[in-house]
Amino acid sequence: MKIKQLKTFKSFSVLHFFITFVLSMKQSRTIFLTNDDSYRSKGFEAAIEIARKFGRVIAVAPDAPQSGKSQAITIYNPLYLRKVRDEEDVTVYSLNGTPVDCVKMAFDHLLCDEKIDLAISGINHGSNAAVNVLYSGTMGAAIETTFYNIPSIGLSLTDHDLDANFEGAIKYGTQIIEAVLADDTLPRSLCLNVNVPNIPCEEIKGVRASRQTKGYWREEFYKRTDPHGRDYFWLTGAFSNAEPQAEDTDEWALANGYVSVVPVQIDLTAYEQIEQLKKIL
Amino acid sequence: MKIKQLKTFKSFSVLHFFITFVLSMKQSRTIFLTNDDSYRSKGFEAAIEIARKFGRVIAVAPDAPQSGKSQAITIYNPLYLRKVRDEEDVTVYSLNGTPVDCVKMAFDHLLCDEKIDLAISGINHGSNAAVNVLYSGTMGAAIETTFYNIPSIGLSLTDHDLDANFEGAIKYGTQIIEAVLADDTLPRSLCLNVNVPNIPCEEIKGVRASRQTKGYWREEFYKRTDPHGRDYFWLTGAFSNAEPQAEDTDEWALANGYVSVVPVQIDLTAYEQIEQLKKIL
Repeated sequence: MKIKQLKTFKSFSVLHFFITFVLSMKQSRTIFLTNDDSYRSKGFEAAIEIARKFGRVIAVAPDAPQSGKSQAITIYNPLYLRKVRDEEDVTVYSLNGTPVDCVKMAFDHLLCDEKIDLAISGINHGSNAAVNVLYSGTMGAAIETTFYNIPSIGLSLTDHDLDANFEGAIKYGTQIIEAVLADDTLPRSLCLNVNVPNIPCEEIKGVRASRQTKGYWREEFYKRTDPHGRDYFWLTGAFSNAEPQAEDTDEWALANGYVSVVPVQIDLTAYEQIEQLKKIL
Repeated sequence: MKIKQLKTFKSFSVLHFFITFVLSMKQSRTIFLTNDDSYRSKGFEAAIEIARKFGRVIAVAPDAPQSGKSQAITIYNPLYLRKVRDEEDVTVYSLNGTPVDCVKMAFDHLLCDEKIDLAISGINHGSNAAVNVLYSGTMGAAIETTFYNIPSIGLSLTDHDLDANFEGAIKYGTQIIEAVLADDTLPRSLCLNVNVPNIPCEEIKGVRASRQTKGYWREEFYKRTDPHGRDYFWLTGAFSNAEPQAEDTDEWALANGYVSVVPVQIDLTAYEQIEQLKKIL
């Protein structure tokens, strides 16, 4: 009996130590959160669900949808910051600016003295694969975070529906963040563009590290006439994939049931052209 | 006398042929123009002055300043297109959108059947060197043009003054465009980020093919209180150059009296991180 009691006590101690360790790991981390669909979106709630697994959550998110805002900053308008949610482990501010404004407001004003362990931007309603990375407000914010030497993950579900099902994005987003936080060889300025296919969670085949697909958008402008007799246009279009067979691309991964993960960098220099330019300039 | 007359005739013929050739070269080209400071800016007039040396000019430019709009597109608002200038060799449209909207409107709606030889975005009032390339509406438009397989040149003068002196930018902008048009080995999707230092034209030492400087902006938010008692912020800040001694960078070129020319590409993949990600994901 005594031995059994001792074993039970030991098991309990190990379990207690483990729980304390996990809780302390969680408590010691602070996760920054933003997005481009506004703090009221379902995808933002899904991101909070992921982020609070890893620590205290501090969010600054747009007060209105900012899709397609890229790396834009607000120069000509004043910015209003408002605390909209304050719980023990989740604080949310809203800002009448772009996703990049939110990042700047967070890291250059609100959180100057805080150590932030990870930034999450999303979960975006819609794809940010291929050249969408250039137009995306979600990825604009994720890229901006790298200037503060904080690993960032832009997370998107390829479904524009306001009531999209984020089950797969939550599962694989959590898994990818766990992997990133557990690895200490990745650069501090890591920025990942993660896209989750819009299929049932159980049909997702896994995660593929990929590269940005080559391609471009071709727009169709819907022309209408307003009540004052003036013509106006709505921007709309379709993505043209220049390399649909390339298995190492993010579009291929998504089309074939995988979550795509593209590491992102911010040097736009086309190095291979410099020598030629030196000759002709 | 007869020989002299013949010589004069021959000289005249050669001159006539040369003028006809130059004029035909000019007439056969169509130059697309946009910017981010609006079609009313002094820099836009300076760009027209450059562009009309090379051919017929067709411009679609924002109807209001769009600085810092990056690669942003307008999703939630209708776009109004208006012809604001119509001369023999210069046609200008204004659009209530971003610089990228202007490019899309031009190439997917207005100019679908036209062969465009070159795109110029600018002349921007202010620097687009270093990481400014990511926030710049001028460069957003220049980058967008590469999706239409047209060489593009984003042109900036490092002076925000509305009444800036564009003499140096016109001289060196013209020179760079001449060099680009004369070279048939450069890729059709060439995109150049050209920045001209804000010094007297005669003090500019020349042109340097450079790479994007590493660095980042740190913001200071000016805090004020509005008449309704609500705090608001203005975004402002300073660029921190992470490598001021690196002589191959655009910031070094500008600081040392050169025009910087950085070739730009649009693949943001951080290729060197893909293998590491494959291991951990």
